[in-house]
Amino acid sequence: MGDRSTLRSRAIGVFDSGVGGLTVHAALRRLLPKERLVYLGDTARLPYGSRSPQVITRYALNNARFLQQFDLKLLVVACNTVSATALPALTEALPVPVLGVVEPGVAAALATGAKHLGVIGTLSTIGSGAYQQAIARQAPSVRVSTATCQLFVPLAEEGWTTGEVPAAVATHYLGALRSRGVQALLLACTHYPLLREAIAAAIGPGTVLVDSAETSALAAARLLEERDLMTDAAAGSEKFLVTDLSEQFGVMAERFLGRPVGLPELVDIAQ
Amino acid sequence: MGDRSTLRSRAIGVFDSGVGGLTVHAALRRLLPKERLVYLGDTARLPYGSRSPQVITRYALNNARFLQQFDLKLLVVACNTVSATALPALTEALPVPVLGVVEPGVAAALATGAKHLGVIGTLSTIGSGAYQQAIARQAPSVRVSTATCQLFVPLAEEGWTTGEVPAAVATHYLGALRSRGVQALLLACTHYPLLREAIAAAIGPGTVLVDSAETSALAAARLLEERDLMTDAAAGSEKFLVTDLSEQFGVMAERFLGRPVGLPELVDIAQ
Repeated sequence: MGDRSTLRSRAIGVFDSGVGGLTVHAALRRLLPKERLVYLGDTARLPYGSRSPQVITRYALNNARFLQQFDLKLLVVACNTVSATALPALTEALPVPVLGVVEPGVAAALATGAKHLGVIGTLSTIGSGAYQQAIARQAPSVRVSTATCQLFVPLAEEGWTTGEVPAAVATHYLGALRSRGVQALLLACTHYPLLREAIAAAIGPGTVLVDSAETSALAAARLLEERDLMTDAAAGSEKFLVTDLSEQFGVMAERFLGRPVGLPELVDIAQ
Repeated sequence: MGDRSTLRSRAIGVFDSGVGGLTVHAALRRLLPKERLVYLGDTARLPYGSRSPQVITRYALNNARFLQQFDLKLLVVACNTVSATALPALTEALPVPVLGVVEPGVAAALATGAKHLGVIGTLSTIGSGAYQQAIARQAPSVRVSTATCQLFVPLAEEGWTTGEVPAAVATHYLGALRSRGVQALLLACTHYPLLREAIAAAIGPGTVLVDSAETSALAAARLLEERDLMTDAAAGSEKFLVTDLSEQFGVMAERFLGRPVGLPELVDIAQ
């Protein structure tokens, strides 16, 4: 069917406020090597975490509408702040399915069978209550403990992921969760996979780590499969767009993507 | 003279990308208790440090033009990134004197008589070369060593200023400057006064700390004095404006100002 094949050939749009979402992009690339991916980092307006819900929603709608010109079949919101704040507004505004990082992360965390879940993220993500509510909806008997880890983002962006300081910072943030005995720990921030080693050491060997970047890519693959939207192409492609380009971008992007990103395209999405 | 008295009664405008400039505001308040101060924190567009020079200049001009409605006699740029990037553009665009934090900080650091100066700041401030160039112009024989301290800003904003982690972070960033034997250390970021204790311990007792917030307020007082622009008012006033208001703002602002700031006014400066 021609229509179906046209739909399948469409792109997957991914956006984040900056480089963090590249961990989601990298997981999508690994799982779906033949898809066309378009990544938008709204670097001119980062970080979203310190913004009000109204502003976050406005920025998210800007980004999503801008990405629609690339003929999307799926939009992945690779940003915890936006996923926790603006997913209903995005779903309503867009004609394509929208996938955030909250629901896939929660589903994967619950699938571990843990009866006591730890959730760590930025102040805005944890403060939004989005993870706590999603867990309560799906598994009301599961106990939830949270911690905000503000220093993890700058440590990841600086590439300062091993040694005494990341270990001490992780111990400071995760000590209480460890002593309360969480059985699984959900990394509810796309930056945190870079600090996985320090986080694992601080939380202890008895706790399973669940990476919301990885689990969101799995959910995207499942959605394409279910809706018969997997590409028929023989090879994939990717495009990186940013709204502001600083000298550090390339270095930081490489840390998050795990390989050089090349020079991204600078775009103007202001409306 | 009526005109002179009208001029004297005008306000001092102060702006920064966020809360950091409140250390400059606090120093101005202490030195000039009778002046009318209007502080603008461009919180909707922070942080400036990761932006390109073109974007920083555009934002700075927006902010300065917005503040002009308050009938200014002086504009203080309480932001190292803007001072290092956009001061010529601001000076050209505005009809009132514009004072940044770079020149006052450099003058105070040189006044210590140090022959080897350390300068610490964000990646964008140090990378701009503005401090290095200002020192080279004024004192070409003085040796300069620099360090970028990316974790200091989030530590200050989180209020995490004492204990093992700030000490270890400061030692990590300042170890090389200490062993190179800098005689004075210029804190070229408005956030750093909050970490003064950890910085002093890490750099060692032989090094004088120069705080660019303090020295900028001194330069502002001197400029008003020289131009006969000191207010005749019996009591001062202050106003705080922000472009986005998050829940954390009040808590962070209190840390930087050293007292509660009250609820700031939310303003829209987009043009």
